[in-house]
Amino acid sequence: MKTLLTASAIALTVGTAAAQDFSSTLPDAVGRVAPALESYSNNDLFGTVWQGQALSSRDRALVTFAALMTRHEADNLADHAALALDAGVTPAEISETITHLAFYSGWGNATAAARAVAPVFEDRGVTADDLPAVDPELLPLDEAAEAAREETVRGNFGNVSMGVVDNTRELLFRDLWLRPGLEPRDRSLVTVAALIAAGQPEQMTFHLNRAMDNGLTQAEAGAMLSHLAFYTGWPRVFSALPVAKQVFEARAE
Amino acid sequence: MKTLLTASAIALTVGTAAAQDFSSTLPDAVGRVAPALESYSNNDLFGTVWQGQALSSRDRALVTFAALMTRHEADNLADHAALALDAGVTPAEISETITHLAFYSGWGNATAAARAVAPVFEDRGVTADDLPAVDPELLPLDEAAEAAREETVRGNFGNVSMGVVDNTRELLFRDLWLRPGLEPRDRSLVTVAALIAAGQPEQMTFHLNRAMDNGLTQAEAGAMLSHLAFYTGWPRVFSALPVAKQVFEARAE
Amino acid sequence: MKTLLTASAIALTVGTAAAQDFSSTLPDAVGRVAPALESYSNNDLFGTVWQGQALSSRDRALVTFAALMTRHEADNLADHAALALDAGVTPAEISETITHLAFYSGWGNATAAARAVAPVFEDRGVTADDLPAVDPELLPLDEAAEAAREETVRGNFGNVSMGVVDNTRELLFRDLWLRPGLEPRDRSLVTVAALIAAGQPEQMTFHLNRAMDNGLTQAEAGAMLSHLAFYTGWPRVFSALPVAKQVFEARAE
Repeated sequence: MKTLLTASAIALTVGTAAAQDFSSTLPDAVGRVAPALESYSNNDLFGTVWQGQALSSRDRALVTFAALMTRHEADNLADHAALALDAGVTPAEISETITHLAFYSGWGNATAAARAVAPVFEDRGVTADDLPAVDPELLPLDEAAEAAREETVRGNFGNVSMGVVDNTRELLFRDLWLRPGLEPRDRSLVTVAALIAAGQPEQMTFHLNRAMDNGLTQAEAGAMLSHLAFYTGWPRVFSALPVAKQVFEARAE
Repeated sequence: MKTLLTASAIALTVGTAAAQDFSSTLPDAVGRVAPALESYSNNDLFGTVWQGQALSSRDRALVTFAALMTRHEADNLADHAALALDAGVTPAEISETITHLAFYSGWGNATAAARAVAPVFEDRGVTADDLPAVDPELLPLDEAAEAAREETVRGNFGNVSMGVVDNTRELLFRDLWLRPGLEPRDRSLVTVAALIAAGQPEQMTFHLNRAMDNGLTQAEAGAMLSHLAFYTGWPRVFSALPVAKQVFEARAE
Repeated sequence: MKTLLTASAIALTVGTAAAQDFSSTLPDAVGRVAPALESYSNNDLFGTVWQGQALSSRDRALVTFAALMTRHEADNLADHAALALDAGVTPAEISETITHLAFYSGWGNATAAARAVAPVFEDRGVTADDLPAVDPELLPLDEAAEAAREETVRGNFGNVSMGVVDNTRELLFRDLWLRPGLEPRDRSLVTVAALIAAGQPEQMTFHLNRAMDNGLTQAEAGAMLSHLAFYTGWPRVFSALPVAKQVFEARAE
C-alpha cells in the first residue's frame, strides 16, 4: 500500500474554517473488519485526496454531502454534515442543498437528510435565523435563456407530460434556481455531484456547463470527479468522464 | 415561492377512502433544517401535486410506495404505506406489490418493505385473511403473446443464461403476472414506477405498453411522470420522458 | 405457484462448509405481510436457485453480499455475511471484498458494510489474525497489459482529470488489484456483481473479460446472472445480458 503523504497530515488542513477530523466519518468497525480499508482511508482518502489543492476542502465537503444524500446513505450523513460545517460550508448552504436536492434526487432523500442533520444543527446551536428564508427576494432571471430552455422542453415533452413541463418552469427555473441561499455556481455543483452519484451522466451536460458558466473552473471540475470516485465508486466517475470531456472540448472551441 | 393552492387544502382530498394526512410523511426535522423544503412540501407537493385530478390519489399513493420501495427508503416506507391505505390502496394490494417488486426491484427491497409495513398492518388490524393467497387460481394466460415473448428472449439470451430465460417464463410470466391479487393494469403501473425510480428507462417500453393495454390512459401516464419527479428526482423523469414519448407516438399510429 | 424442489431441501446443501440456514435472511415480517413472497423465497429462491449446481453456494453467497453492499442494504448485510461464512467464504475474503468495493461502489457502502459485519465477526471469534494484512506482498503485475490499460485511459481522460488517471493507476491497478487476500477471479467476480447491482452494464465488458481470463467459466457467469436477478431485480440483469452476450461471443471467435 502506497502512502503519498504522511499520516500526520490527516487531521490538519490549511485555509478552511476549522481543522477537519476525518476520522469521525470512519466508524471503528472499519478497523476491526477491514484494516486495509482503514489504512486506505487515512493515508490516501483523508491524507491525500482531501488535501488536494485543486479543489477547496469546502467544495469537497459540499459535493461529498450531495453525493451521499443522493445515495440515501442516511447512516453516513450526520458525520459528513459535521465535516462540511468544519470545512466552512454554512448551515444555510447545507439547508439549501437539502431543499435543492429534494427536487434533483428525490423528496425521501431530502427528508432523510433533514432527519440526519437536525441533531448536528442542534448540537452546534444553529437556529432558524441561520437558515434561508422560505420566501426570499429571488435573484434576477435571465429571461431569454429561460425562454429558450422552456421552449425546448415544451417542444420535446409538452405532449407527454405538461405537468413536468409546468413544474420545471414554475418550481425549478423561476423559483428554486433563483433562491439566493446557495450561490448559482454551488447550486450547479451539487446538482452535478448528484447526477454523478445517481449514475445519470446523460443529464449532466446542461448542469456542468451551467456550473462553469457560473465560475467552476475546469481544474475544479476535474478534481471533483477525482474526489467523487471515492464516494460514488470508480465506475460512476468513469461513466461521467466522457460527458465532462465533451463539455470541456465544446467550451474550448 | 409560489403557492398554487391554499394550505388549507393539504389534509383534505375528495373521493378517496379517507382524508390523507400528508404531514405524517414529513418529519418535524424538515422544518428545523430546511423551512423552505417544508413550505414546498405543504404548498406544492401535498397541496397541489397530490390534489391533481389527472391521476387518482390512490394511484399516486401506489406508485409512490413502489418508487420508495425500489429506492430502499426503508425509513420512509411505513408512513407511505399508511398514506396508501388512507388513499384507498388495500392491504392485499400493498402485499402483492411487495411480492411483485421483489422480482422487479430485488429481494432485499421487498424484505425491507415487509419489515416496514408489518407494524402498520398490525396497527390497523390487518390479518392473513386480508392478504392474497399463496396459491390462488391464476388469471388466464394469453398463450400466443407469451409464446412470442418467450421466443424473443430465448433467441436473444438462451445462449447467455438459460436460468434467466427459464425463470422469467416459469416464475414471472406463467405465475407472478397471473396472480389475481393486483389488477394487471396496477401490476404494470408499479413496474413502470420501479423502472423510473431505478433509472432504467431502457426497460420501460414493454411495461408501459402493457400498462396502457390494460387500461392506463396516456393522461394518467403523463401525470404519473409528473408526480414521480418529486419522489425520484427530476433527472430520473427526464430520462424516462423520451421513452414515454416514443411509446405514446407508436400507439397513436 | 410452482415448486420445483421440495421444501425439505431448503436448509441443506451439499459440499459447502456448513448447512446454510436461508431463513435467517428472511425476516418474520415477510410471512405476516406477504405470504406469497415467503413461499417464493422458500420454494424457489432458497429451495431451487441457491441449490443450482452451475454455480457453487460459496460463489452465490459472495456475489449476493457484493450486490447487497453495492445497494447499501445495510439492514440486510449482517444476515448475508453470516450466510456467506456458512457457505465457505472466509472472513478474510469478506474483509477484502469490503475493501475492494469501497473503490468500486463507494466508501460509504464499505463503511456501512464494516458496521454490519463487525458484530458477525465478533460472534464467530474472528480476530485481526484472520484478516488480510494492511501491507502484504503484492501479486506480480503484468506490466505490458497494465501499460496498455493506462495509456488508453490517460489518452482518453488525461485532459479531463489527471487525478482519476493517477489514482486508477497507483491505487487500483498497481495496488488494490494485486493484493493477495482475494483471488483475482473472485476480485473480478465481485466487481461484476457490483456493476450489475449498480445498473452499470456499460462498465462491465472489461471486468467480465478479466473474470473469465482468471477462471470464471461461461456457465458460471450465466448462473451468476440468473442468481443476481433475484437480488438486484430482473431489469438490472436484462440490461446486463446484452453485454454478457457480446463478451461471450467475442471470446468464442
